[in-house]
Amino acid sequence: MLKQDTTLMPDFTHNETLISELLIAMHEIADLNALAALAEWDQNTDLPEGAGEVRGDQMATLQGVMHERWTSAHLGHLLEQLDKSSIQTSLTDADKGLIREARRQYDQATKLPRTLVEEVARTQAGSFEAWRRARSNNDFASFAPWLGRTISLQREIADRLGFTETRYDALLDQYEPGMTASKIDQLFAPVREVTKSLLQRIENSGHVVDDSCLQGNFDSQKQVELSKAILRGMGYEFSHGGIAVSPHPFTTSFGSPFDVRLTVHPDLHFIQSSVMAAIHEGGHALYEQGSAPTLVRTPLAGGASMGAHESQSRLWENNLGRSFAFWRGQYKLVQDAFPEQFANVDVETFTLALNKVQPSLIRIEADEVTYNLHIIIRYELERAMVNGDVAVESLPGLWNAKYREYLGIEPESDSNGILQDIHWSSGFGYFPTYTLGNLYGAQIFHKLHEVFPDLDARLGTGETSFILRWLEENMYAYGVIYLPEDLIRRVTGEAPNPAHFVRYLTNKFEKVYGL
Amino acid sequence: MLKQDTTLMPDFTHNETLISELLIAMHEIADLNALAALAEWDQNTDLPEGAGEVRGDQMATLQGVMHERWTSAHLGHLLEQLDKSSIQTSLTDADKGLIREARRQYDQATKLPRTLVEEVARTQAGSFEAWRRARSNNDFASFAPWLGRTISLQREIADRLGFTETRYDALLDQYEPGMTASKIDQLFAPVREVTKSLLQRIENSGHVVDDSCLQGNFDSQKQVELSKAILRGMGYEFSHGGIAVSPHPFTTSFGSPFDVRLTVHPDLHFIQSSVMAAIHEGGHALYEQGSAPTLVRTPLAGGASMGAHESQSRLWENNLGRSFAFWRGQYKLVQDAFPEQFANVDVETFTLALNKVQPSLIRIEADEVTYNLHIIIRYELERAMVNGDVAVESLPGLWNAKYREYLGIEPESDSNGILQDIHWSSGFGYFPTYTLGNLYGAQIFHKLHEVFPDLDARLGTGETSFILRWLEENMYAYGVIYLPEDLIRRVTGEAPNPAHFVRYLTNKFEKVYGL
Repeated sequence: MLKQDTTLMPDFTHNETLISELLIAMHEIADLNALAALAEWDQNTDLPEGAGEVRGDQMATLQGVMHERWTSAHLGHLLEQLDKSSIQTSLTDADKGLIREARRQYDQATKLPRTLVEEVARTQAGSFEAWRRARSNNDFASFAPWLGRTISLQREIADRLGFTETRYDALLDQYEPGMTASKIDQLFAPVREVTKSLLQRIENSGHVVDDSCLQGNFDSQKQVELSKAILRGMGYEFSHGGIAVSPHPFTTSFGSPFDVRLTVHPDLHFIQSSVMAAIHEGGHALYEQGSAPTLVRTPLAGGASMGAHESQSRLWENNLGRSFAFWRGQYKLVQDAFPEQFANVDVETFTLALNKVQPSLIRIEADEVTYNLHIIIRYELERAMVNGDVAVESLPGLWNAKYREYLGIEPESDSNGILQDIHWSSGFGYFPTYTLGNLYGAQIFHKLHEVFPDLDARLGTGETSFILRWLEENMYAYGVIYLPEDLIRRVTGEAPNPAHFVRYLTNKFEKVYGL
Repeated sequence: MLKQDTTLMPDFTHNETLISELLIAMHEIADLNALAALAEWDQNTDLPEGAGEVRGDQMATLQGVMHERWTSAHLGHLLEQLDKSSIQTSLTDADKGLIREARRQYDQATKLPRTLVEEVARTQAGSFEAWRRARSNNDFASFAPWLGRTISLQREIADRLGFTETRYDALLDQYEPGMTASKIDQLFAPVREVTKSLLQRIENSGHVVDDSCLQGNFDSQKQVELSKAILRGMGYEFSHGGIAVSPHPFTTSFGSPFDVRLTVHPDLHFIQSSVMAAIHEGGHALYEQGSAPTLVRTPLAGGASMGAHESQSRLWENNLGRSFAFWRGQYKLVQDAFPEQFANVDVETFTLALNKVQPSLIRIEADEVTYNLHIIIRYELERAMVNGDVAVESLPGLWNAKYREYLGIEPESDSNGILQDIHWSSGFGYFPTYTLGNLYGAQIFHKLHEVFPDLDARLGTGETSFILRWLEENMYAYGVIYLPEDLIRRVTGEAPNPAHFVRYLTNKFEKVYGL
């Protein structure tokens, strides 16, 4: 949470009637939203196996109440008055952000008729089940009709939400406001080309990184304790959060910045999973805990977009958390937690092991170099689907061809190929935000080096609070006040620019692999 | 959950439009209620210390939405139509119970104006803080004005809710529908007199039960594991529940019978606390898990009243769980969990220790004999307060005099006296349900012995499922369908009758103390 003088925090104009009324409406929705997040957290951590159906009903009821609030005539009327009002010129940035976010979500809720929303929910549920069975049976054909239905529903959603250039923009805008497919094409092109050639050079070098020190037997409870120690070191505040275990690690908020929790999932034989997940989720959590307290109970508390959020998980996980400097300061925590395994492993060997590059078929196991190729393949395919450029039956072939072309490997089955991710059971437009996060993260990392020329040396002493403090004051405190592109410009002084990521990746892995 | 044939379950008339509409309204409220319970559970188990205020806002918002639903014109209209409708005669017991409960809660919600409800909430919050400080400073005078305010608010609530005989009836009815102060007076009188004389005989005997085997050092995690083993033995279903640790043990439901959870609070030096709390909370939980699945998402899932609920926690904790027969079947669990402490303690010594009688000042530490005297003192005082028969300043003196008269001991400070319980920070009418629970429980225990003449022998083999099965089929499955008095009559064949408790208590403790 913001440590600075509260008078410097972004805030709303509290003596303006229309803003106060909007805040009352937003507080109510934010509270209900926090309770929905709590129910989901419980679903992933504690829900008894026999309670799935009744919890589903409870969630649907709560979503119904929230939808009622988001589409209420009262809110519509308020937003109309605000549009016309002469107070516009005297508003703070927080006021403007609040109106923009309220308008955006009101429009999304009112533009999509209830029948469509229900049809989407039903299709998602059916598609999710079909996907689970199809993946387990390696049977794409049984999933194909569901994917076809999802494509046509997503096209209808895009048409109803509206767009200027291409349908895909409308879907993307839900997760990354202001971003468009044509901007993404420009941002991703150099990443794709440089990564492909870097990967080629790594493979040609014949050099293989040894990560055997990360493998062995690691007690589950001790891994959780290690995760806590690492998070404490990063500045995560347990007085405003908590940690649990769930099948897939995630971060959630029940009222940022005051209650932000995360989960880890210890792998008993590979320590890297829980360590890097703790740092990754820690990045998300620090961003949420850094929102100015003035923004609490509004849609402006939290991260500016999915891409902005991922920029922080990736900045902490990769740019910082896979650097030699970071581990020079933190490695003692690992050695203390698992002395038997790491007493005789030096910090260079440990850090190098975290940076092993190995093209693989599975996105969620991918290293820092190959990860974006997995994303770009998905982005290219979903754009084609939304454009209507591709028949569903031909997708597995296209998928495999792209893996061969970009990563030099090909799935032996659709279960390890096009059926591996859950995302296409629900819709399109989300995947690109992962790579956007990597680009934003590298750009902010570059800025941090400008601001702190001695960054590596200070990290090496175990100190990270100067970084958190700077990020809180220059980025986290502002929550969702600015659109992501504007936020990146404010934080780094320039528009999103892939050159920083490309340079960072090349320099780093030329060193790691002695190219 | 009910194991019997589903065609035998109580159910609603699903092809009747008015009933279906009422069910839709009730489902929504039940879902929101379950989420409120989840938020409270989280507050008691996991909430970070810095998130109290934001959680308070979220709870208030959710309560507001529920109040909006309970007072909606739609619901009022529906209930009016149902009152007039000719379908009345063809309704099932479940339909009638649903209409009765909906009407009761609609009336309570609409009869109390929002300003009064908010004033009560504010006074409760202030009173709770004042009570906490007063107890810690042994300063009744600082709490007195808050108690005075609570008395006048409770009188106003009673006047608005309405009553026939006495104001106290209106307050009591919120927790024990249909119960009145004059019925309570009749039920409690023999309990008070017999208990006082039994206690006198125990003290005169000079016999002291040795409970030193329950004291020692007991690992916290092992106590939780033992609680789980005991609950599993009782028939608690973990696939529809879960266990956590909290400062005070409690049971809650997020959609009975499908999600019923409980907490324990291990005392590191006194094993009795967590063992008996597990059985007590287990009794509450079995009752909730036993509701017919047909009642899910309605106000009829769960326990018929606070007294009916307490009857099950007490039946399992005291009538069964403090009996020699029960422990002959279950003691191995304790010995297996703590071999060092119990390998050389026989089951008779262990069970006898659980039955030590010792008049004490603190209600929540009271034994089975003295417990009801604590309750009766509180009931007598709160009746006087609601009647306006007593000045607030004179209450500590009255309290101490009653303790001297009933229990033969006197508090050396108000902190251990009138200030010990939190309840009077919020209102009146709840305390008597504890003793009602003991009376109902003993009456049902008597019935169980009639149905199963070999009950003790079967218990001694470790078998309890025949008891649970009978309770499910004859009581639990019916949830809130019947008023508590009618339910007790259906289960036991007679109206609530204190003779069963009086006889049970006398016979048992004459044996324990060799009188």
